[in-house]
Amino acid sequence: MKKITNIGVFTSGGDAPGMNAAIRAVVRTAIYENIQVTGIYRGYQGMIEADFVDMNRRSVSSIIQKGGTVLKSARCLEFKTKEGRQQAYDNIKAHGIDALVAIGGDGTFTGADLFSKEFDIPVMCIPGTIDNDLYGSDYTLGYDTANNTVIEAIDKIRDTASSHSRVFFVEVMGRDSGCIALNAGVGGGAEAILMPEVDTGITELFGELELAESRNKSSMIVIIAEGDQNGGAYNVAKIVKDKFDHLDIKVSILGHLQRGGSPSSFDRVLATRMGFKAVKELMNGNSRATVGLRGTAIVTTPLEEALSKKEFKLDEELLAIANIMNK
Amino acid sequence: MKKITNIGVFTSGGDAPGMNAAIRAVVRTAIYENIQVTGIYRGYQGMIEADFVDMNRRSVSSIIQKGGTVLKSARCLEFKTKEGRQQAYDNIKAHGIDALVAIGGDGTFTGADLFSKEFDIPVMCIPGTIDNDLYGSDYTLGYDTANNTVIEAIDKIRDTASSHSRVFFVEVMGRDSGCIALNAGVGGGAEAILMPEVDTGITELFGELELAESRNKSSMIVIIAEGDQNGGAYNVAKIVKDKFDHLDIKVSILGHLQRGGSPSSFDRVLATRMGFKAVKELMNGNSRATVGLRGTAIVTTPLEEALSKKEFKLDEELLAIANIMNK
Amino acid sequence: MKKITNIGVFTSGGDAPGMNAAIRAVVRTAIYENIQVTGIYRGYQGMIEADFVDMNRRSVSSIIQKGGTVLKSARCLEFKTKEGRQQAYDNIKAHGIDALVAIGGDGTFTGADLFSKEFDIPVMCIPGTIDNDLYGSDYTLGYDTANNTVIEAIDKIRDTASSHSRVFFVEVMGRDSGCIALNAGVGGGAEAILMPEVDTGITELFGELELAESRNKSSMIVIIAEGDQNGGAYNVAKIVKDKFDHLDIKVSILGHLQRGGSPSSFDRVLATRMGFKAVKELMNGNSRATVGLRGTAIVTTPLEEALSKKEFKLDEELLAIANIMNK
Amino acid sequence: MKKITNIGVFTSGGDAPGMNAAIRAVVRTAIYENIQVTGIYRGYQGMIEADFVDMNRRSVSSIIQKGGTVLKSARCLEFKTKEGRQQAYDNIKAHGIDALVAIGGDGTFTGADLFSKEFDIPVMCIPGTIDNDLYGSDYTLGYDTANNTVIEAIDKIRDTASSHSRVFFVEVMGRDSGCIALNAGVGGGAEAILMPEVDTGITELFGELELAESRNKSSMIVIIAEGDQNGGAYNVAKIVKDKFDHLDIKVSILGHLQRGGSPSSFDRVLATRMGFKAVKELMNGNSRATVGLRGTAIVTTPLEEALSKKEFKLDEELLAIANIMNK
Repeated sequence: MKKITNIGVFTSGGDAPGMNAAIRAVVRTAIYENIQVTGIYRGYQGMIEADFVDMNRRSVSSIIQKGGTVLKSARCLEFKTKEGRQQAYDNIKAHGIDALVAIGGDGTFTGADLFSKEFDIPVMCIPGTIDNDLYGSDYTLGYDTANNTVIEAIDKIRDTASSHSRVFFVEVMGRDSGCIALNAGVGGGAEAILMPEVDTGITELFGELELAESRNKSSMIVIIAEGDQNGGAYNVAKIVKDKFDHLDIKVSILGHLQRGGSPSSFDRVLATRMGFKAVKELMNGNSRATVGLRGTAIVTTPLEEALSKKEFKLDEELLAIANIMNK
Repeated sequence: MKKITNIGVFTSGGDAPGMNAAIRAVVRTAIYENIQVTGIYRGYQGMIEADFVDMNRRSVSSIIQKGGTVLKSARCLEFKTKEGRQQAYDNIKAHGIDALVAIGGDGTFTGADLFSKEFDIPVMCIPGTIDNDLYGSDYTLGYDTANNTVIEAIDKIRDTASSHSRVFFVEVMGRDSGCIALNAGVGGGAEAILMPEVDTGITELFGELELAESRNKSSMIVIIAEGDQNGGAYNVAKIVKDKFDHLDIKVSILGHLQRGGSPSSFDRVLATRMGFKAVKELMNGNSRATVGLRGTAIVTTPLEEALSKKEFKLDEELLAIANIMNK
Repeated sequence: MKKITNIGVFTSGGDAPGMNAAIRAVVRTAIYENIQVTGIYRGYQGMIEADFVDMNRRSVSSIIQKGGTVLKSARCLEFKTKEGRQQAYDNIKAHGIDALVAIGGDGTFTGADLFSKEFDIPVMCIPGTIDNDLYGSDYTLGYDTANNTVIEAIDKIRDTASSHSRVFFVEVMGRDSGCIALNAGVGGGAEAILMPEVDTGITELFGELELAESRNKSSMIVIIAEGDQNGGAYNVAKIVKDKFDHLDIKVSILGHLQRGGSPSSFDRVLATRMGFKAVKELMNGNSRATVGLRGTAIVTTPLEEALSKKEFKLDEELLAIANIMNK
Repeated sequence: MKKITNIGVFTSGGDAPGMNAAIRAVVRTAIYENIQVTGIYRGYQGMIEADFVDMNRRSVSSIIQKGGTVLKSARCLEFKTKEGRQQAYDNIKAHGIDALVAIGGDGTFTGADLFSKEFDIPVMCIPGTIDNDLYGSDYTLGYDTANNTVIEAIDKIRDTASSHSRVFFVEVMGRDSGCIALNAGVGGGAEAILMPEVDTGITELFGELELAESRNKSSMIVIIAEGDQNGGAYNVAKIVKDKFDHLDIKVSILGHLQRGGSPSSFDRVLATRMGFKAVKELMNGNSRATVGLRGTAIVTTPLEEALSKKEFKLDEELLAIANIMNK
């Protein structure tokens, strides 16, 4: 097995709090192990454009607490072409990079897997996305921080909702994943939660609202994942308003502030452990795998498995609990 | 002048952080002065329904840090009728209330003024609204807290915006007031700010964006007050997208979370001073006036003056500064 | 097995964020299952004084986001006596309480175990302490929130430390546990971490400081668990000052603010799941057990086992990582 | 009057949130006016060591939200000597700096005044200190942020205090100034407040505590400015414990976290206005003056006046209010 001398690290896809902490851990672990580190800007785009920076311990000072990613991120269509990937490979080869750590989500991992196979370059992947929708880790980087951001928003909305006896439809992120909706919904004490994985009919929602009214709750907060079948919050609000005309209904789309913010302690530590593990695994000859948290341990999963399998991240029991807490 | 024996306190109109701190101050000051205090729920609606509660020091324990209003708030059309007001008066008279402290905005003050004249009952008004759009006080209750909420949101959005080189159109509250937009825009380091009071043409905005691009800023954040002439953030985003098709544009509507949250130190202290002053003024025979902050002093302004005059709350100099900071 | 009709719930020992969320979950789950719930104030003291309150769904409205415990907590020497426990039993019997949910730490569990055996009353325990020093759960209630509180404090201290090139000795809670010190230390990017479980000699610390100096770091932050062998932060600071007289050294004792604050999303959801589980287990005839989080599942552990066993909660790997991140 | 071509900006003395926002405003305003800006590191020390950096718009990107100061700060004894100042002058002259903006407190202003007179170099001062103890401005930079930091800490301490019916003695910053103690004390709903400017005898404090006890308050929080005559919190706690042995007393020294943190909206806007004004005044030939906030206007005060006069920043009325709120 060839000794690794220069690791290229990059972030790709949607940014998530904790990515900087992961970059920091990759850089400091590698340097501690006398391996050089090259920062690749804007993910695959930066590879194709040879947008590189040599990193040292100082390059990652005081970034552990920063949201976003200092290496930037970008979508890159060109990398989907053989020519694009060839260009990328020529660049990293020319720069002496002989291994990669990719931080991102599904698309990032798919590209890394393909690239690694085509050019036989070792790669380890770190799951970074607030959606928590990746196989191989109980929690993805940024998910915990996003949940905290959402419950803080719900707490604020609850203040005004209960002052005015209003019904709020709060849309949270999650095109295909209800993780934030369910967890932040339970954490925020929502009266109802709509998410893609669970087919909550509108009539069911009507029931929840009637029940809450019958208990003359001073306010109601309905959390809706953006990917829910009933459409976004605006749509659901409209349907409800048509039936419950007397209700004072408001809509709140939390949007991209869910992606930012200083990472939580949980995400900072998780990112640090994942970055450390990714480098160690590369040194041990592991490749085409993701690092992840299982219980309290950092484990690895072959990319092939991680990309082919899906895990239902919504705790069945928590779904039942959510229904009981507000009944 | 008749000695006051029972003060009725209520909140009306949109809630704002600091209202609870003001209620607490009214209650504790009055009781300290051996005056009874009656809490009136849901503003004028509660007056008409005689929805009262006798308050003591304990009724306001641990509410100084709470957003919203423990006395609730509501719109009340009935109070606009002579019959409604007569009913309200009969109720407060029956309950022994001989003076009022009204906490709220424009509409609240108008009703208080009319009611006070019709039934010759002393009333003092406390300006509580995040919009800071009232005459007679440099700052209204909740405005400082709302500004902090907005810059925290902008800071989070900036994380993700700069990671992706995106342009964000962030809509903040302010139907007729650009106070939050301007202050939070300057505080958040926005690239451009659109507000009702200033007629920023779209072409001007185009210029700002071109300039920012020419400086290849990694991200741009445009703050838009909901009441801006160019329409809300969605509308402006659409217009800009038509002209700058290459830009990666996102929209964020902060919405009602701006109304909630634990009040800032500034708002807690201001509310406490205003509540104290309102009671003292009633004791001194003052009526039909608002309390407000001028410089570092708490002053009063006759309701007639407060309701008839408008003050341009946007510091002219700050408008100029906003344009320089990002040029 | 006797059907349970009335569950007494109480908090005891040091309070922790998430206790209210757990109380809420116990109450709402029990009522949903047609079981009455009695709130017992001030833990065992309240049992002895029959300081009870019948709880309904409304009793726990809007407490999920509150720090501390609405049922209060207290130390109780009297409960260590047979007479005290007899009195407590007579009271709960008289009130119709036929099962208990105890929320707290080591001492709370010991008392619950003894009480349950003596009077053959079913009891389930929920681990609530910021120290994360209990066997049977990967995380205890309040630990995640405390970690966030500490890293926020460290981030603030870092601002001023780096502005002045200062060395800070920050003391965090943990008499016998270094969990907060290690996790918040890693999360806060501390230059060194001292904790009870790891015998870091002062000379070793000197080495760390010399190394950091040799890298002319603009600032250094040393985290010290209150229970560390080298004594608290003041003591360590004095020893270091004697050797490194040129350093600008400051001490910060974070103290009890670590115990308070609105619980994190993680703690709110964990508390809700634990409270639900505790009631379900009592219904299923389980007793003398603790509920806990293992991986992503809520499990139970016999009290006997939980009280006799110790688990080393400091991830060995994380200890190594901590040393690498700042080298 | 000589046209200014190169402004040297520096921070000195204790750092305060908002200093970075002020630096940013100075840099961007000057560049907008085609004036060069030189950053001087570590205040007067950097002047003597010619530790300079040429600044452009980009040098101050994304620092408006950062606590501390990117230009660092330091104490400098050498500057108190004629030789030191001569060296400093030779350096700035050699670098082409022909005007200065000094951001800091009393000591910083004194040095600036002396230096400006000795070498006839124009200087404007910006009041940056969390203590709010400078003449010429209603608020100093960082004061508002510090107040928010302190009330957040008090809110957290209140959670645990009320859960355990404890008495907390919380020490806040302010060697000669009770501004933070009074404002945060009122904002945090403290039962008693001790500050240097007000001679509150211990017996008076005993009275407050007895009163609070007589009302069987579930908890008591006493705020103590570090400069209070009765000594720090530890000392006062000891004295109280001797008399009220039955009380469960805890001490919390908030310490340096009060100096850090992201500046509040109020401080960011104030800093931006002050930085803008300082440059404008230099351009208009003004010198040896401080900028400050009076009401809603940014004004200037001659350094001579600012340094000779003292203003009692504790609002007399607020002192009375503090006593009423908890009686």
